[in-house]
Amino acid sequence: MSPMKVFGHPMLTNVARVLLFLEEVGAEYELVPVDFVAGEHKKPQHLQLNPFGKMPGFQDGDLVLFESRAIGKYIIRKYGGTAGLDLLGENSGIEGSAMVDLWTEVEAQEYYPAIAPVVFECIINPFIMGDAETNQSVVDESLVRLRGVLGIYEARLEKSSYLAGDSISFADLNHIPFTFYFMTTQYASVFDEYPKVKAWWEAIMARPAVQRVCKNMPTQFSVGMRAAF
Amino acid sequence: MSPMKVFGHPMLTNVARVLLFLEEVGAEYELVPVDFVAGEHKKPQHLQLNPFGKMPGFQDGDLVLFESRAIGKYIIRKYGGTAGLDLLGENSGIEGSAMVDLWTEVEAQEYYPAIAPVVFECIINPFIMGDAETNQSVVDESLVRLRGVLGIYEARLEKSSYLAGDSISFADLNHIPFTFYFMTTQYASVFDEYPKVKAWWEAIMARPAVQRVCKNMPTQFSVGMRAAF
Repeated sequence: MSPMKVFGHPMLTNVARVLLFLEEVGAEYELVPVDFVAGEHKKPQHLQLNPFGKMPGFQDGDLVLFESRAIGKYIIRKYGGTAGLDLLGENSGIEGSAMVDLWTEVEAQEYYPAIAPVVFECIINPFIMGDAETNQSVVDESLVRLRGVLGIYEARLEKSSYLAGDSISFADLNHIPFTFYFMTTQYASVFDEYPKVKAWWEAIMARPAVQRVCKNMPTQFSVGMRAAF
Repeated sequence: MSPMKVFGHPMLTNVARVLLFLEEVGAEYELVPVDFVAGEHKKPQHLQLNPFGKMPGFQDGDLVLFESRAIGKYIIRKYGGTAGLDLLGENSGIEGSAMVDLWTEVEAQEYYPAIAPVVFECIINPFIMGDAETNQSVVDESLVRLRGVLGIYEARLEKSSYLAGDSISFADLNHIPFTFYFMTTQYASVFDEYPKVKAWWEAIMARPAVQRVCKNMPTQFSVGMRAAF
């Protein structure tokens, strides 16, 4: 059987998210490059995989999926058990699943809207896109919001090692792509104010699967980088 | 055993989302009012339920949850089978779950960001909050984006009656709260341009459980309404 295929560039946050789950479960896969600077993701071939023209696309035999969080769950359901991982909390019954779902939603609804603007303003807009200056007031407002979220995380992580309980889950791993890039900015030290959060992040980053994915994500940015795609 | 408790007002979109799943599965529950104009959701009692100070809060015995989509899945996992519903697609294996997850993410990542600004600009800001005029350029840009999303939905609904397949799922039902309010605006006729989408929406609205929840959601708005909370 041919391996699963991921269409996109490993530097992109939503592509990296999918690769994280593939690496965590140890599944065989093929990464198929999509030249997004040339607009390949808006062309018919890619639109067959993702009608919204975004990355990643994903294929497993006849099954075509998009939306990185949905792809991640599919990979976990198919291979997570074999890998001895309970990333969706199912071994702890419906209460376990509920805690994973809850903190997955918190990442999407609270954490991402707080941290993403800093990454966009400090990295993606000025360097990768090369089309805008950093808007400092957006950064400052986002840091206020992020500190509010991290305070709630700190209280949560006083009760358990990971967000949904004492073992790592889908919810924790979803934080990686944007937090990884945030940690390359001058604002990384915000995390030092929250020792439980800092320890949680270090435990996540110590995972070999996470390191394999992150080694393909840059930590230095320049406008010229765009030409590399 | 005491019934599940939902803390919040049934007019609020995230509260309505939870009530929809409770009504669909036919579970017993108690709706506990939270006076959000008086800021009760920011006070210690509510923060015990939801540390982000948002609604709804949710309690089932000793289990406390927040985030409406996570609560919805918990309700479905606990009672959906008894009610003869397969809202998470699990009867169709991991491919079925993946299709529900995919279209649930599309709602959150593509549909909501397109439709919500229209509802905020036409209803929530001017009437419920009473603190801003409608920003027409935001409305116009959102309608362009919404038409793009609805075009993709139209193509999808030519292949199956509902987004994730031929039976209704969690993904479809998550569209209700914001679409319901959108349909009270002068832009409701946008849906007429997409006959499959229109038929899908009418099939959703014809469900008795949906009607029971929507009868507590207003269709006429006035600044004075704020005082009713």
